[in-house]
Amino acid sequence: MANTTLTKAEVLRTADELSNWGKWGADDQIGTLNYITPEDVVAASKLVRRGRVFAMGIPLDRTGPQNGLFGGRYNPIHTMLATGTDAVAGRFDELKLRYADDVLQMPVQGATHRDSLGHIFLGDKMYNGYDARLVDSGGVHKNGIEHTRDKMIGRGVLLDVARFRGVDSLADGEAITSAELDACAHKQGVEVRRADFVILRTGHMERCRKAGSWGGYAGGDAPGVAFETCRWMHARRIAGFCSDTWGVEVRPNETSEVNQPWHWVVIPAMGLTMGEIFDVSELAADCANDGVYEFLFTAPPLVITGGTGSMINPIAVK
Amino acid sequence: MANTTLTKAEVLRTADELSNWGKWGADDQIGTLNYITPEDVVAASKLVRRGRVFAMGIPLDRTGPQNGLFGGRYNPIHTMLATGTDAVAGRFDELKLRYADDVLQMPVQGATHRDSLGHIFLGDKMYNGYDARLVDSGGVHKNGIEHTRDKMIGRGVLLDVARFRGVDSLADGEAITSAELDACAHKQGVEVRRADFVILRTGHMERCRKAGSWGGYAGGDAPGVAFETCRWMHARRIAGFCSDTWGVEVRPNETSEVNQPWHWVVIPAMGLTMGEIFDVSELAADCANDGVYEFLFTAPPLVITGGTGSMINPIAVK
Amino acid sequence: MANTTLTKAEVLRTADELSNWGKWGADDQIGTLNYITPEDVVAASKLVRRGRVFAMGIPLDRTGPQNGLFGGRYNPIHTMLATGTDAVAGRFDELKLRYADDVLQMPVQGATHRDSLGHIFLGDKMYNGYDARLVDSGGVHKNGIEHTRDKMIGRGVLLDVARFRGVDSLADGEAITSAELDACAHKQGVEVRRADFVILRTGHMERCRKAGSWGGYAGGDAPGVAFETCRWMHARRIAGFCSDTWGVEVRPNETSEVNQPWHWVVIPAMGLTMGEIFDVSELAADCANDGVYEFLFTAPPLVITGGTGSMINPIAVK
Amino acid sequence: MANTTLTKAEVLRTADELSNWGKWGADDQIGTLNYITPEDVVAASKLVRRGRVFAMGIPLDRTGPQNGLFGGRYNPIHTMLATGTDAVAGRFDELKLRYADDVLQMPVQGATHRDSLGHIFLGDKMYNGYDARLVDSGGVHKNGIEHTRDKMIGRGVLLDVARFRGVDSLADGEAITSAELDACAHKQGVEVRRADFVILRTGHMERCRKAGSWGGYAGGDAPGVAFETCRWMHARRIAGFCSDTWGVEVRPNETSEVNQPWHWVVIPAMGLTMGEIFDVSELAADCANDGVYEFLFTAPPLVITGGTGSMINPIAVK
Repeated sequence: MANTTLTKAEVLRTADELSNWGKWGADDQIGTLNYITPEDVVAASKLVRRGRVFAMGIPLDRTGPQNGLFGGRYNPIHTMLATGTDAVAGRFDELKLRYADDVLQMPVQGATHRDSLGHIFLGDKMYNGYDARLVDSGGVHKNGIEHTRDKMIGRGVLLDVARFRGVDSLADGEAITSAELDACAHKQGVEVRRADFVILRTGHMERCRKAGSWGGYAGGDAPGVAFETCRWMHARRIAGFCSDTWGVEVRPNETSEVNQPWHWVVIPAMGLTMGEIFDVSELAADCANDGVYEFLFTAPPLVITGGTGSMINPIAVK
Repeated sequence: MANTTLTKAEVLRTADELSNWGKWGADDQIGTLNYITPEDVVAASKLVRRGRVFAMGIPLDRTGPQNGLFGGRYNPIHTMLATGTDAVAGRFDELKLRYADDVLQMPVQGATHRDSLGHIFLGDKMYNGYDARLVDSGGVHKNGIEHTRDKMIGRGVLLDVARFRGVDSLADGEAITSAELDACAHKQGVEVRRADFVILRTGHMERCRKAGSWGGYAGGDAPGVAFETCRWMHARRIAGFCSDTWGVEVRPNETSEVNQPWHWVVIPAMGLTMGEIFDVSELAADCANDGVYEFLFTAPPLVITGGTGSMINPIAVK
Repeated sequence: MANTTLTKAEVLRTADELSNWGKWGADDQIGTLNYITPEDVVAASKLVRRGRVFAMGIPLDRTGPQNGLFGGRYNPIHTMLATGTDAVAGRFDELKLRYADDVLQMPVQGATHRDSLGHIFLGDKMYNGYDARLVDSGGVHKNGIEHTRDKMIGRGVLLDVARFRGVDSLADGEAITSAELDACAHKQGVEVRRADFVILRTGHMERCRKAGSWGGYAGGDAPGVAFETCRWMHARRIAGFCSDTWGVEVRPNETSEVNQPWHWVVIPAMGLTMGEIFDVSELAADCANDGVYEFLFTAPPLVITGGTGSMINPIAVK
Repeated sequence: MANTTLTKAEVLRTADELSNWGKWGADDQIGTLNYITPEDVVAASKLVRRGRVFAMGIPLDRTGPQNGLFGGRYNPIHTMLATGTDAVAGRFDELKLRYADDVLQMPVQGATHRDSLGHIFLGDKMYNGYDARLVDSGGVHKNGIEHTRDKMIGRGVLLDVARFRGVDSLADGEAITSAELDACAHKQGVEVRRADFVILRTGHMERCRKAGSWGGYAGGDAPGVAFETCRWMHARRIAGFCSDTWGVEVRPNETSEVNQPWHWVVIPAMGLTMGEIFDVSELAADCANDGVYEFLFTAPPLVITGGTGSMINPIAVK
């Protein structure tokens, strides 16, 4: 059950309690990705047994989930700089090369993406105690996504809570507790360990796809983790947490005193890497079929200097 | 030595000779990525021995190599939608969430990237015989990058031709022949096999970095492979070929009758996946140090619907 | 009444009949703007009697009418490059100048705008017989908006058909005939003359504003001129025609054989300058009040090299 | 001669002395544009005698003056959404309408433009005492350009200081004093009056054009007005001041203690509307020829909600 008496004071107390500021040095900018050791990467690579690859990025086009909320996020805009119709029309005869070229423009968090630790603030601070004002119109000058360029590979674990509950999709507003995460893992026969990338399936994206409309997917009500799972994340020392929803945590939130209370704790206090809008349908079907819920996970971010995150196409390899 | 008598007729003859059209079915849109089997992915994963990760994406910011040539390519533009300075100024008090958000805009081939098979045309056709006019202002309607979303993982092999020659960087205009690729591989003690991603190091990017200026890196003169290496690529049935240069092949080209003759053959005729503007300096130093030139390679593209390619942050894991 | 038996053949015949190709020379790129003489500009300036200025541009922001139809048009995106919050946070202390800066991005026809004569084609041709393929990914190489940079000033005449009919707004699908344009002008006591910019008020925009939603304004059904009015435009030798709708002509169109039949004739055949999405509510109220429906009109386009048109803020001065 | 002993303290004292805060009410957002009365507009319209129109906007394309300085300004990016090559290739057959469409993207101050009063701050304030933090990532929430949508028309006066001095162009660093502005006006036989838009010609843009390169035009050294001319602007109660340079005032500035000292005073303290990067060559040649230096001036801004200014194509009509 979700905590229904959550207050802002408790959120702040929890942030203070679970803070990882200084844990990896005063200069650290990558937080829980520090948990991953070279040995972990080697071990994760051994999870590749069948050579099956699952891509979890959604298509980057105008059909995406954005609706203009939350600071004006919009769906990807893809425009051409040179086309085959130009080529056939003889435009490039002088160049002696017939080609096509194009431009992509999108909010970095507009589709499948990872957050950097400069994305969410706690008061006037960001992760590791940096001043929030180090994020200005010029970009994220501390905790930018570029610092994680070679850090996004390790063991992945899928927690398919929808299948665990025996439903196609959790309903909006349904919270997932730490106890349920554990029970789900136990039933799946998989253990969540230090340095893992844990991927949650609620079925929300598949529900939207089936309905033929994103509806309130981006910023509306949604199933997701309960606030108290931040303790679970902290205790298990995972490297990252990802989900098939817009914002990982349950909405409506468990309090009206703050917006996205779980975010307040896990990003700026704990320094947890988070991934959102993952399409896990194929991966989940495969895991359900062979009973193997662990895999090699890789999701290298674009090296966006000063980025609050990066659009990605995350890959699971079994 | 480069072929100095190359003609357009020979380029077209070679394209015809090395064509893979129909090889993987009339509907194929991914070309040589078809060479990769699940077994290859399993075998590639076993190359992870030390858990060292090398990211090969260059920073995406205004300091990039683009200079406006080639259809108006420009360097990445990164702008903020919400900042920490806004947050501290109280802008988000009503929202009850202090956050930062941003937008990235760039030509998909403007920095480290992979091409799709819709990027280069041969006459009025693209790979597998599709009409070039299927690439219009709406995007690449056949051979788009989205079809490779789960195909960019396998064995990587670095061919460090600069170190092989004992130079920091090859000079502009110096061509690398098939024989030299073989000799380099042999000296490195590594074999190029079916389904490999071969990564070439010429030292060009490091030369620019040392000079403090990209100069003519994007579209000017450059070291690179000779035209005849297209036969080498074909015979070895590699999955992809990448380099630390703007355009893989030597410039000035070996003919003035066509621009980028090697491209004319390997993309539209062979369907070879290509990667460009890779920063291989760290990887190459490590390979030189431990003598191991093979690794797990992964470079999942963004799922850009109808993209001529995708910006990527390619990863090598040893 | 609208012509309900309109066929594609008739559209093409009419285009042929009303063609102005060659009328102003083989090199002409501005069409009916040629009707305006310096004397007309002098005469128009004398219409300024009270010094009242009416701006007809709608706000350029996310609240605009676009909905993604018609080639992916979207509403204006306005992003900041430097802000006051940055300034107060001390970001610019080193620069010794506290400033704000921003970027506007939008389809040139996404809000209040004028078309250039390169916007619509007739078969494989554009106005004055230029090959349509002279409009490629590099822009509009003939008939671009830049050629009209000093041509958009003259006498303006408002035809307030909604008030003429005694309604707040015409209904979608209601066509306005030449006879009604004449009757409206007559009742208003104004004459339409050679070189005029005629501005039509249907009440459509005000209807949307009242409803609090653009609905199908952009590309859906709408009131507008009947196809046969192209003859009226031609006979009166007007310089331009503008309206408070998305596309001037009535929708659903009077035929299903072609889309926007009036456009087929007036832009590529006649070379008529057209303006759309004009907010005429204030101007119309003033004209109704003082009974004066003529004024100095000016709507200088941005000098967009190779533009299919330009966003504008048209001005009427009475 | 320029004031060579200018200090920051003097700049601040002058700002305080010339402040128009509150002059037009606590809610005012348009400053000196308030000087223009309807009678002024009527009088200005009477300056149209020959019907000659002069457009002063520079082309909006990649050949513009921007070089990345000053917060990352870049030249206009114009991309197509639909082309004639697409049309001829049959792309629009199903739509039954052959058309072209395009997008313009640019910093609003990247080419010929006007500033809004939210562009420059004085300490933590902007014009009329508004908090600078009312300019955030969401835009300019006070003093935005949209408030001037119907205010940019009136009497224009050209002060051709280059011709007054008998040179093609003033040299970089040469300051123009109030005395010289008066002497120039006197020699030209024109009087600067309340509510005028004064346009300065230094010849700088023509010098760049002749050289075939913008060089340091955008943000480098330049001729321009001396700091003390802010008193002249204030005393004459002009509505706006514009020039053919990037930043109106002389560069290097007359002090190293602040950057653009004249801006510090005229925008946030006085509320003076400013225009920059005007191409006045044709207009100036005509004025020199007929000896008439006054005209109807109009430069309606785009209605950019929350804009720091607007790109424009200013028009002079004689």
